[in-house]
Amino acid sequence: MPKKETFQDLSLPALKGEQELWRWLYTELRAAILGGRLKPGARLPSTRSLAKQYSLSRGTVIAAFDQLLSEGYIRTQVSSGTYVAPIMPGQWLQANRRRSTLKVPASKATLSKRARAMIHGIDLLAPSHSVGKAFRSYEPAIDLFPVELWSRVASRVLRHAPRSLYGHGAAGGYQPLRRAIAEYIGGARGVRCVPEQIIVTSGAQQALDLAARFLLDPGDHVWMEDPGYSGTTQTLRAAGAKIIPVPVDQDGFDVKAARKLSPKARMAYVTPANQFPLGVTMSADRRLELLNWAASIGAWIVEDDYDGEYRYHGRPVAALQSLDHSGSVIYIGTFTKMLFNALRLGFMVVPERLANAFEAARSFVDRHPPTLDQAILAEFITEGHFGLHVRKMRQTYLERLSVLKEAAQKHLDGLLTIEDAAAGMRTIGWLPAGASDKLASKQASMLGLEVSALSAFALKKTQKPGLILGFAGCTPHELRRGVSVLSTDLRGSR
Amino acid sequence: MPKKETFQDLSLPALKGEQELWRWLYTELRAAILGGRLKPGARLPSTRSLAKQYSLSRGTVIAAFDQLLSEGYIRTQVSSGTYVAPIMPGQWLQANRRRSTLKVPASKATLSKRARAMIHGIDLLAPSHSVGKAFRSYEPAIDLFPVELWSRVASRVLRHAPRSLYGHGAAGGYQPLRRAIAEYIGGARGVRCVPEQIIVTSGAQQALDLAARFLLDPGDHVWMEDPGYSGTTQTLRAAGAKIIPVPVDQDGFDVKAARKLSPKARMAYVTPANQFPLGVTMSADRRLELLNWAASIGAWIVEDDYDGEYRYHGRPVAALQSLDHSGSVIYIGTFTKMLFNALRLGFMVVPERLANAFEAARSFVDRHPPTLDQAILAEFITEGHFGLHVRKMRQTYLERLSVLKEAAQKHLDGLLTIEDAAAGMRTIGWLPAGASDKLASKQASMLGLEVSALSAFALKKTQKPGLILGFAGCTPHELRRGVSVLSTDLRGSR
Repeated sequence: MPKKETFQDLSLPALKGEQELWRWLYTELRAAILGGRLKPGARLPSTRSLAKQYSLSRGTVIAAFDQLLSEGYIRTQVSSGTYVAPIMPGQWLQANRRRSTLKVPASKATLSKRARAMIHGIDLLAPSHSVGKAFRSYEPAIDLFPVELWSRVASRVLRHAPRSLYGHGAAGGYQPLRRAIAEYIGGARGVRCVPEQIIVTSGAQQALDLAARFLLDPGDHVWMEDPGYSGTTQTLRAAGAKIIPVPVDQDGFDVKAARKLSPKARMAYVTPANQFPLGVTMSADRRLELLNWAASIGAWIVEDDYDGEYRYHGRPVAALQSLDHSGSVIYIGTFTKMLFNALRLGFMVVPERLANAFEAARSFVDRHPPTLDQAILAEFITEGHFGLHVRKMRQTYLERLSVLKEAAQKHLDGLLTIEDAAAGMRTIGWLPAGASDKLASKQASMLGLEVSALSAFALKKTQKPGLILGFAGCTPHELRRGVSVLSTDLRGSR
Repeated sequence: MPKKETFQDLSLPALKGEQELWRWLYTELRAAILGGRLKPGARLPSTRSLAKQYSLSRGTVIAAFDQLLSEGYIRTQVSSGTYVAPIMPGQWLQANRRRSTLKVPASKATLSKRARAMIHGIDLLAPSHSVGKAFRSYEPAIDLFPVELWSRVASRVLRHAPRSLYGHGAAGGYQPLRRAIAEYIGGARGVRCVPEQIIVTSGAQQALDLAARFLLDPGDHVWMEDPGYSGTTQTLRAAGAKIIPVPVDQDGFDVKAARKLSPKARMAYVTPANQFPLGVTMSADRRLELLNWAASIGAWIVEDDYDGEYRYHGRPVAALQSLDHSGSVIYIGTFTKMLFNALRLGFMVVPERLANAFEAARSFVDRHPPTLDQAILAEFITEGHFGLHVRKMRQTYLERLSVLKEAAQKHLDGLLTIEDAAAGMRTIGWLPAGASDKLASKQASMLGLEVSALSAFALKKTQKPGLILGFAGCTPHELRRGVSVLSTDLRGSR
């Protein structure tokens, strides 16, 4: 056996410090391989003889060999022995060298088209660093959320949950939560469903995304409200849909206009209870027209009922889904607007014939929603805390809207006309004709306010200039301060 | 004014029972409209005169009108009055009729092609109703999870979290968790990254799905391990990718074979630390070859390191990502396998140049992961509980593997040869040549065991017949019981 192929000649340096024996042997052998002292293909002595030579236990040698083996430095061949693997030590070293001296080219790999469509032209919502900020529109009154109560319910659920709740959950959601949701929305929104039709999601956004992915093929036409929710348009684009902007008037989504624009659309996206962002309610005849169209051609209707319960005039308008007899409506609701954003729990109600398929497909998207959060929410609902909180918030939001209107009447007269919101968590402040809402919102941002321009949600139809003002999540003090800042802003820009 | 256009003639029935006045008025007016007594276009009297006529407060009449207005039954025209809306009462009634008498056709609308691809030929994982079941392979030892400790940490976090944590969170994840993860995987897996490269996901499955959606266009070729993880193949199919099955041998993924099959693939999916399902470790030369290929043509490598820390021989093999200098690797890890499935928190480490884009695109998928769960996990990691738990589990799983091997030696000799798993939560039991693993697994299921056939994960290459046996999540008692049941099963089927 030629010397260079054996290990016996290699003098390993002595063990330093407190290192484990196997790790010392492993490190030295690896260094010998990488340094070229042990060449590719060289045969190593048996673990037995190596142990004897270095006065080690055989287990120590085996541990070192195992590690080298599992990292690919050495190879074992049955009844033949152990060899240095045929790796290129130069290659290995090059890859381990510092970045600055590398020859490895930076990857030219790119994002997919759908990812680029998804992020094209959007502003990322920043995480909240404060609560109650004027005029943030996407957060409920987190300053008034009963944190103590929620924590108590959570602690109880976590302590008493059976261990199976820590295991793999159901793709459609935790069954007691699905039951609680079905019962609640049956009463509060007139939605007709059995618990199995409910798919618990990560807020309304995931429900929108799942609906787009599971129901649309690339090139499909989708009727989209104009102006409309950008969270929907981005998701539709990512699914490869062709968006057909449909005008919204005082009766909501204009079904007749839509039928002219694209009679064979595969889906319609609507916010019937409180149109985003205009705040109008879809009329009964439009609802029926939309349902009849969908049933007759086999199209889907996505009903986004993101804050349908916060209605200040009259009782909440029943959901469109309550009138659907053909199984065309996907109803979407969310607890992020009813409780708090960070919870990330919402749901969709799908027609019965879709329930199994949605549950199965969802399991390959993210398996299932977090079970313990669902169990906490289920308790919160069935113990009545949820209903009580929503009723309290409805009263609070009405008061906050009044604060906004009063302050605006005093300080924004002639500058901004506040729409009297009939529902929801935001309203529109109309600017004088000819003003630029984009400029006004940009200036407001620089003054520390969160104000969106109505035109930012326009797809095709030009809208009157307006600012979208959240009021529900803003403290009265912040609302007054915001109005005062806005007054400076708008006076300055006139 | 012609009589039929006025309201004065309509005799409303008296109020029955405890109903609120406005609701009685609303109901009766709606009935009059739907029944055709109030025709489309009919003008209603003023709220003032109606209040007087029926001895109601004006507020009551306004409340009823508001409700009718918001539901679209009536219309107001400025300085002209209130009219019945031009709806078709027949249409409305038809939609409200019982399902059995409906003329509305059942919708013919269908699922998208991608949803059908996603659910084609899959078995849905059922929710856990028990823990520790033999031979479930996708759950860690939930019977030993420190529920009390987790609950204590959770209670503390929920009680002391600033309210801003209840608001909208960061799309990439809660920053302290991203920091904790970056630090931990730097030490434990050699992954080199800054916290901003980490995108917190709903388990590894969402990370796989995001990688497929954000990095692949329809028709792109993807190198996929054969046999390989079905959670990946379904997701790749849904993204429209063309899957190129690449054989796996004792050195892991065969890069040379892959280059012959499709030199210009856009992505490679690999499980280098513990190949799913064969359990082999990818050798160092294969790793370098794969990295060099990806860097040279601008392809992505998705490294799924789902249980890389549970290594029983030698120390965990460092992640492939630690050798990547071109920014080609997307590294995926998950806490569902390290802690418990129901948590639904995992993460991906993306190259720095992708971090912003991934964060933005993710916000349209599901906005962000649940913040409070992330805060609890961050505490659990930084307080050292996580590292301790993983070390304990490594010991436990090694013991459970021994239990399985011992029991199998006694009762399955000649029927099933248990592979000595070097890592992970499952191993393979090899059946005699010529046996059908699908049949054996089906029979085992009927006897109450959870056993997958190796061939269920084969794409193209025929595998030797084998059964995938989870051991980490199964109690020793269940493992022994399972072996005994399996012995009956396999003896019977010989």
